Amino acid sequence: MDEATAFAPGHITAFFAPYPDRDPVRAGSRGAGLALSDGVAVTVRPVDADAADSDGHRDAGSRADASGLASLDLDGVPAEMAPVERVLAELNVAAEVEVESSVPVGAGFGVSGAAALATALAANAAFGIGRSENDLVRVAHAAEAAAGTGLGDVVGQFRGGLPVRLEPGAPGYGRLDGVPARPQIEYVSFGELSTERVLGGDLDPVREAGEAALTRLMRAPDDLELLAAGREFAGEAGLLVPEVAEAVDAVEAEGGLASMAMLGRTVYALGTGLTDAGYDAAACSVHPTGATLRPEG
Amino acid sequence: MDEATAFAPGHITAFFAPYPDRDPVRAGSRGAGLALSDGVAVTVRPVDADAADSDGHRDAGSRADASGLASLDLDGVPAEMAPVERVLAELNVAAEVEVESSVPVGAGFGVSGAAALATALAANAAFGIGRSENDLVRVAHAAEAAAGTGLGDVVGQFRGGLPVRLEPGAPGYGRLDGVPARPQIEYVSFGELSTERVLGGDLDPVREAGEAALTRLMRAPDDLELLAAGREFAGEAGLLVPEVAEAVDAVEAEGGLASMAMLGRTVYALGTGLTDAGYDAAACSVHPTGATLRPEG
Repeated sequence: MDEATAFAPGHITAFFAPYPDRDPVRAGSRGAGLALSDGVAVTVRPVDADAADSDGHRDAGSRADASGLASLDLDGVPAEMAPVERVLAELNVAAEVEVESSVPVGAGFGVSGAAALATALAANAAFGIGRSENDLVRVAHAAEAAAGTGLGDVVGQFRGGLPVRLEPGAPGYGRLDGVPARPQIEYVSFGELSTERVLGGDLDPVREAGEAALTRLMRAPDDLELLAAGREFAGEAGLLVPEVAEAVDAVEAEGGLASMAMLGRTVYALGTGLTDAGYDAAACSVHPTGATLRPEG
Repeated sequence: MDEATAFAPGHITAFFAPYPDRDPVRAGSRGAGLALSDGVAVTVRPVDADAADSDGHRDAGSRADASGLASLDLDGVPAEMAPVERVLAELNVAAEVEVESSVPVGAGFGVSGAAALATALAANAAFGIGRSENDLVRVAHAAEAAAGTGLGDVVGQFRGGLPVRLEPGAPGYGRLDGVPARPQIEYVSFGELSTERVLGGDLDPVREAGEAALTRLMRAPDDLELLAAGREFAGEAGLLVPEVAEAVDAVEAEGGLASMAMLGRTVYALGTGLTDAGYDAAACSVHPTGATLRPEG
């Protein structure tokens, strides 16, 4: 068993209609977003059962005891990521996990989903588990839904590009399409925003605005429409936060298109929209591929 | 309207069970294969209706008259590719098309499917047609099936990686999975092989061997099993041609894994299997992404 590394793109949700479900493979959301060339790389390093048991909380010897997270570093610092822990438990393996993120954490880039998905792909390779791609995406999606950290990032991060979630849920339940454009993207983050807090209230207005945005997008699925539908959604769902609203206005004043990453204190724009409006923005591409094991050789 | 370029990976079919259908979006095959970093780039350049009508075969003026292929070059030489022609007709646009292939043509790499798929993606961008990704894959798949040039390459070329066709047909009809491995691949081609001639006979033995190979692969979906299932299929379906059989034996004698590209006079091997057996082989990676519009910027 060797270590293995996988990459999953950051995923900005442009708009969404949440469909929670008691069954985490059926839980999900309709909506659309942007998979980014910036994202999350995860290295999974197998540890043996004895090492995993060294904390004394488990009985040694049985196979189930060997499963779990021996340690997790996020950008070099010990951290907790419940979806990653759930993925390893579901795959019944014990590992050290290193997560490196080139997008801000807790700011609407789906870092927890990307980490769960890349962990599933890397663990499958490192341990020779022999699951299929759909199985691994399903495990990561369910881990994220069960942990309450997201509903739609994982399936979008696996598809790549500008993914559209036509039906909610993991592979075998949900249904995806995509917007066939590959624009350059800029973004600026103003800090963290609690997904749980925002989604703790009445979901009906959000769902209604999300469904309207999806209908609008699929009538003309291109990148301009994706941004415009996201912008309309942010206003109608009442989710815009002040710094983001100001930045969106500034980009629009320069003739650009921008909106808010759902759910984060982050503004994103097509092309050089944020730079044109005077912001010091990060620039990246749309990730054409979606999550993948780092190729051998 | 500007020109646009898209890339689609070459696709080696490891094994297949053909399911022809009168309806080309339902026609397809079960099976599995390898999407390669070597493949086909297509540039689509819009021409106006008058230019398309200059051969005098069509009445000028109506919108339908403007659709079709103004010219097609394959690696710089004028050529005919029926699926590409059908894609442009279906999208109702007139264009010059340049196809550049880094894999051998007519040798089992799905060049016609790749050209159809990349044409659909590039034409959508060049003309601002506003179709979704699934729509464009559907158009390319149907064009290929209707032209009789292939049944499963297009959907595999869009997914990328090591695609598995669980159910035959275009998006909305078929169902895909994937083998989550990204090995290096070598190949040697000994020339062309007529798909139509090989598939003109009784399809039942091929279908039976293809279904058995798929069942085998999905019990342990990794790259070694993909090669081994393909090797078993080639023997059982009676499709091996002499030069390829000799090369497969030579790779196996060195402890490697190789099989025949379905359907082409081509042998492919995992890792450096062909070089190790003394062949002068082309080397490439598994393409992680699948077909995509060439990114802007």
